Amino acid sequence: METEPVDILLIEDNPIDVELAIRALKKSGLVNNIFVVNDGEDALDFIYCKNKYWNRKHSGIPKIILLDLKLPKVSGLEVLKIIKSDEDKKIIPVIVLTSSSQEKDMIESYKLGVNSYIQKPVDFDQFVESVKQIGMYWLLLNKLPIV
Amino acid sequence: METEPVDILLIEDNPIDVELAIRALKKSGLVNNIFVVNDGEDALDFIYCKNKYWNRKHSGIPKIILLDLKLPKVSGLEVLKIIKSDEDKKIIPVIVLTSSSQEKDMIESYKLGVNSYIQKPVDFDQFVESVKQIGMYWLLLNKLPIV
Repeated sequence: METEPVDILLIEDNPIDVELAIRALKKSGLVNNIFVVNDGEDALDFIYCKNKYWNRKHSGIPKIILLDLKLPKVSGLEVLKIIKSDEDKKIIPVIVLTSSSQEKDMIESYKLGVNSYIQKPVDFDQFVESVKQIGMYWLLLNKLPIV
Repeated sequence: METEPVDILLIEDNPIDVELAIRALKKSGLVNNIFVVNDGEDALDFIYCKNKYWNRKHSGIPKIILLDLKLPKVSGLEVLKIIKSDEDKKIIPVIVLTSSSQEKDMIESYKLGVNSYIQKPVDFDQFVESVKQIGMYWLLLNKLPIV
């Protein structure tokens, strides 16, 4: 179980996107600790310190969450809804990072309280660049409460 | 009354900050139409097409809102609360841009559903740079629904 605070919780089931995102975030030099989960159920277990994460420190909430929408077990929109309906967890910035270009996913995400919605570029280099920019914006420019 | 769609609604009472922000946003080349209001009441009138904005097109909602917290008449937190409690308006990204470094303002903003919280740098050049980065992130990288 991790002891360091988690900077970014990456909720993504595509192994290529996971690898590219980690590479981009590490390259930015801003991120020490990225935790990756591959489905919505595991994401909620991590956030709520349940099941296999039962002995994780409750105080160790991630600074930001990068959330894919099409996820196994529990969908990204459902994960978003649960986080943003929770008085304690809703302060965590959630950035949707998805290949979905569907207007209804976007509107639904904003209505559920997403902080930002980014469409994954198809091009690998552009994807890496976008993730780097997300990291820079949310960890350097945006101000987060100390929790 | 404006006919062009408003890219950014800037809610700010400090004339120096208004001038610097406009300069930074225009410099980025991304923004055509910035509308400035100087207090919270005027901001709500603009958003809801009330009083002196009665003949503004209701469809012309701004793409993003830059919101100061310490505002005359109606506070920034109150403006934020009203926007984010409104099913139609809550999809507009609201970025708080404030000199407040108070943890309680930050937590309250996130709890009310702010999209991002930026602390104004004291240095003029850094302030211009931050506003430019905000414009780049929200108008170029972040995806907005067509409304």
